[in-house]
Amino acid sequence: MSNLFRSLVFVPGNNPRFLAKAKSLPADIVCFDLEDSVPDKEKKKARVLIKNTLKQRNKYSPDVFVRTNSPESGLIELKKIEKTILSLEKKRKIKGIRLMPSIESALGVVNCYEIASSSKRIDALVFGIFDLLNDMRIEYTKGNPRGAKYSRYKVPVAATAAGVVAIDGIWQDLKDKSGFVKDCQVGRSLGYAGKSVIHPDQIKTVHKIFHPSKPEIIWAKKVCSVYKKSTKKGKGATVVEGKMIDEVHYKRAKALLEI
Amino acid sequence: MSNLFRSLVFVPGNNPRFLAKAKSLPADIVCFDLEDSVPDKEKKKARVLIKNTLKQRNKYSPDVFVRTNSPESGLIELKKIEKTILSLEKKRKIKGIRLMPSIESALGVVNCYEIASSSKRIDALVFGIFDLLNDMRIEYTKGNPRGAKYSRYKVPVAATAAGVVAIDGIWQDLKDKSGFVKDCQVGRSLGYAGKSVIHPDQIKTVHKIFHPSKPEIIWAKKVCSVYKKSTKKGKGATVVEGKMIDEVHYKRAKALLEI
Amino acid sequence: MSNLFRSLVFVPGNNPRFLAKAKSLPADIVCFDLEDSVPDKEKKKARVLIKNTLKQRNKYSPDVFVRTNSPESGLIELKKIEKTILSLEKKRKIKGIRLMPSIESALGVVNCYEIASSSKRIDALVFGIFDLLNDMRIEYTKGNPRGAKYSRYKVPVAATAAGVVAIDGIWQDLKDKSGFVKDCQVGRSLGYAGKSVIHPDQIKTVHKIFHPSKPEIIWAKKVCSVYKKSTKKGKGATVVEGKMIDEVHYKRAKALLEI
Repeated sequence: MSNLFRSLVFVPGNNPRFLAKAKSLPADIVCFDLEDSVPDKEKKKARVLIKNTLKQRNKYSPDVFVRTNSPESGLIELKKIEKTILSLEKKRKIKGIRLMPSIESALGVVNCYEIASSSKRIDALVFGIFDLLNDMRIEYTKGNPRGAKYSRYKVPVAATAAGVVAIDGIWQDLKDKSGFVKDCQVGRSLGYAGKSVIHPDQIKTVHKIFHPSKPEIIWAKKVCSVYKKSTKKGKGATVVEGKMIDEVHYKRAKALLEI
Repeated sequence: MSNLFRSLVFVPGNNPRFLAKAKSLPADIVCFDLEDSVPDKEKKKARVLIKNTLKQRNKYSPDVFVRTNSPESGLIELKKIEKTILSLEKKRKIKGIRLMPSIESALGVVNCYEIASSSKRIDALVFGIFDLLNDMRIEYTKGNPRGAKYSRYKVPVAATAAGVVAIDGIWQDLKDKSGFVKDCQVGRSLGYAGKSVIHPDQIKTVHKIFHPSKPEIIWAKKVCSVYKKSTKKGKGATVVEGKMIDEVHYKRAKALLEI
Repeated sequence: MSNLFRSLVFVPGNNPRFLAKAKSLPADIVCFDLEDSVPDKEKKKARVLIKNTLKQRNKYSPDVFVRTNSPESGLIELKKIEKTILSLEKKRKIKGIRLMPSIESALGVVNCYEIASSSKRIDALVFGIFDLLNDMRIEYTKGNPRGAKYSRYKVPVAATAAGVVAIDGIWQDLKDKSGFVKDCQVGRSLGYAGKSVIHPDQIKTVHKIFHPSKPEIIWAKKVCSVYKKSTKKGKGATVVEGKMIDEVHYKRAKALLEI
């Protein structure tokens, strides 16, 4: 389970050196990629590499996620996946596998609230701007492209409504640093909790701009205080600002205050 | 039932002087507030004050609404409330209690069309920008904040689709009058019929900017003419521009033409 | 069935000369109008004119559509229409009648994804900005009016999600050519495949700006190559980028490459 969501770094799953180096990345989340960054021919090799790497996942300072190849995506599949995960958890005696669905197609945008609320395992929605624009056959333009606005603006609303966070899409032009800063600020102002990252050099900027906001700090303080009182009385889940608060939220709140 | 929706003034429910003064406010709607503007300690007192004030509601020049404390909100509750209202109307021999749900959370935004069309008692959706931004943990910035755009732009579409009007959120900075004017114009251009108001000084500006638009005037004239013909023939409800028109719409249309 | 959707020219259905001239218009689609451009008194005459014109529809260089008078619109009706069309096709021995629903009311915007995916006959959603603004009682302002943004931005997302294209609304001011160019560019950047046109002079500009984008060309090449292989093996439908591809898509892809 992830407590912080400021930065999600994609690590190509076919590169053993990058997979190893990710151990000490100062990011909140690393995501071993089996999808776009791995050529078809290397998928098999990458799958084995990631499988082996995951055995050492306790040695990773960031939280570890894996970006799988897309099944024929959609809600129904998400519920199938849920079942598969549960049986795998039992079989392999692991616990607490979490999900972060990518919203990177027009159909995903239409259904993003339903997707975000389809499983208790979901921590976040990750917005994928390039795949979305490609799905809509829109040429990417730098900045805050008009054709992605409806979707980019909707995703954090849907995520909040479902009680999860939203992580913004990547910024591709590593050389255009002021463009990157601006893009982070746009994401922040839209309610994203963090940003997808394609290079370690971007992490510092991301953490600076996605530093907890005042409303987050106030929320986190409330949650910590109310939850502690509630557990002292022997109760678990409680209510803050009219919403159910359990251990997941408590840990997230604590992590926010510890930054 | 409200016929005009240009201005909705919030009146703190714990202040007897303000409640009394609201009688002669030149606003379309006054809303006795039991929620944000009343501290927890004073809720009980405010409830009694409002109860007594409501006995004189016929002496109020604006329409009178009450902003209740939020129950654990949602659609289901709205239908429960509907039942409660009906039984109260029978018991206390009052008629025509109307509702104006506030859309002030991400979940409310997701469901705003369903909310707007969940009861025949609903006159309007009221957009609550500060609570929404707080729900999304976005710091408020003056103007037309980016993080609220998706929601602020969606609400009037959902309201229109459900056959009700939309009332825009408040402007907090009483000193920044040009900012206020601009904010009213933004709301107007988005299709809001009026604006929430926190100080009587704001009413005049609001009424000026939310003066009936040309399409409203044209619609109102059509409705009045068609409805009069229909009632002469002994029929009630009729159709204008493909939509059902009944007495509610006729009164609203007449009021628009009388401004 | 339409293969290209760059330009949709409305032709008043009560004007025999315009109906005849439309034969050789260099547009992708002509749409014989029975709705807004035909006064009530001429509807009957127009219906007969269009009926006779349709007998020569094979002589038309653009694809031919008819814009009917709105029934009390909505999804349910769309399914009724589907049945009527099927029985008409059988009775009159015609094939392949296609639909392009107009999204021109707030209720249409709320339901645009459901509408777009309600029938296999649907080729495109057509956005109607003037009727929408009128429905929302917003006065039209030139450019990209704020009150239509939510809707105009949502329609191509919903269309893409349903696997159909979106055609942008009209530009009314024939004299303001730079305004028209800009409006076409806005539509293009939002993912619209083409634009509604009220005068033949607009066609050239529209075709220039809605020239296939790079992602469209790449998609079209993939579809053609994969579909040819698939049919060689005796299979029909196949999958490209995770989506079902059949003859409809193949023809569209081929047409895009032939521009």
